[in-house]
This record gives sequence, C-alpha cells and structure tokens, in this order.
Amino acid sequence: MAFVQLSRLTARPIEHDTVVRNLIESAKLFDGDPACLLYLVTESVDSPHDIWVVDVWTDEEAHSNALQAPELQPYIAETKPLLTGVPEQIRLTPRGGKGLPIG
Amino acid sequence: MAFVQLSRLTARPIEHDTVVRNLIESAKLFDGDPACLLYLVTESVDSPHDIWVVDVWTDEEAHSNALQAPELQPYIAETKPLLTGVPEQIRLTPRGGKGLPIG
Repeated sequence: MAFVQLSRLTARPIEHDTVVRNLIESAKLFDGDPACLLYLVTESVDSPHDIWVVDVWTDEEAHSNALQAPELQPYIAETKPLLTGVPEQIRLTPRGGKGLPIG
Repeated sequence: MAFVQLSRLTARPIEHDTVVRNLIESAKLFDGDPACLLYLVTESVDSPHDIWVVDVWTDEEAHSNALQAPELQPYIAETKPLLTGVPEQIRLTPRGGKGLPIG
C-alpha cells in the first residue's frame, strides 16, 4: 500500500538555502528508484523558514530502505547540524484521490 | 509556478468515514482538470482522527478557481458541519525534487 510522508524541517536562518539545496541534491538519488513516486522539496508560503518535503512511495518499507542507502548518508550527516531541532514527520496512508497509483 | 497545499481536517469521530468519502467523491471533479496534478486524500498513521489532503496544482490561481466550481459547493456544504473546527491549511511552493512538473 502506498505511503506518504510529510516532513517539516527548519534550518538555522543562514543555512536555509543550503538545506533546500541539499534536499534537492539528495532527491536525485531517488530518480532511478521506481518505488519513489514523488519527492517534492517545498517552502512554506506563509512561514518562509519552514521547509516541507512531501514524498510518496509504493510502500513504507521501500521508503525505509531508501533512507538506508549509503549514498544518502553524507547528505544526512551534512544537513542535520544545519537544522534547528528534529524534523516533524507525518506518516499518511492514501485512501483515494487523483494523480498517483495508491493501491 | 506550481502550488502545493496540505490540509489537515478532523471530523467528529462518528463522521470520519463520511468525510473521507466526501473528499474522495469531490476529488472526481478534478479528474478532468489538467491544472490539478495531484489530489490525495489520506489518513494519518499515528493520529487516526487526522485526515490530510495533499494537493498539487499548476498554479495557485487554478486552485482558487477550482474551489469556486458550482459542482463542488454541495460537497463543501455537506462536509463542513461534520468537522471539528476549521481545517489547517499549509501553502507551499515547490523548489525541486522528483515526480511532478514544478516549473
């Protein structure tokens, strides 16, 4: 069953652009992964310090496995210290709608 | 520029399934709208009362226009009284990533 995760990250202000860039760079690792259906790096319109990542995977296990990829670890190690605290993560199960396979 | 909105809705417990069904039904109105790239109706894994809608549009104006459609109004009128309060809405601007046109 498809799996959706919303993650809210807040960077130290001077590091905001670096964090956005790191997230976009690291997302390239998922380009060839058919289990990754969507990985959007976004900024909040109303709270400009908030970075949200919206990702959709074929299933939650595929997502967990992708986070273990050795190529991803340098991005995680570099980005974590630039954040103000631990990212908020919201795990979701799709029930219906438009635009992606959600079976 | 593409526009993403996250909406968190909480229904009165006895109305939860009705609200999910109404959202999925009303999403069918967007099936033929090329400006609607994604409209996912989801439930929180960890807070089962929370319903999240994740939608992506070609631009924010297209989203605003879609909400004005006369066919949508009965769904809104029926669903609003089933909620416990006003939905939380988070407006986002995509900066990069995988899976959708974001130009």
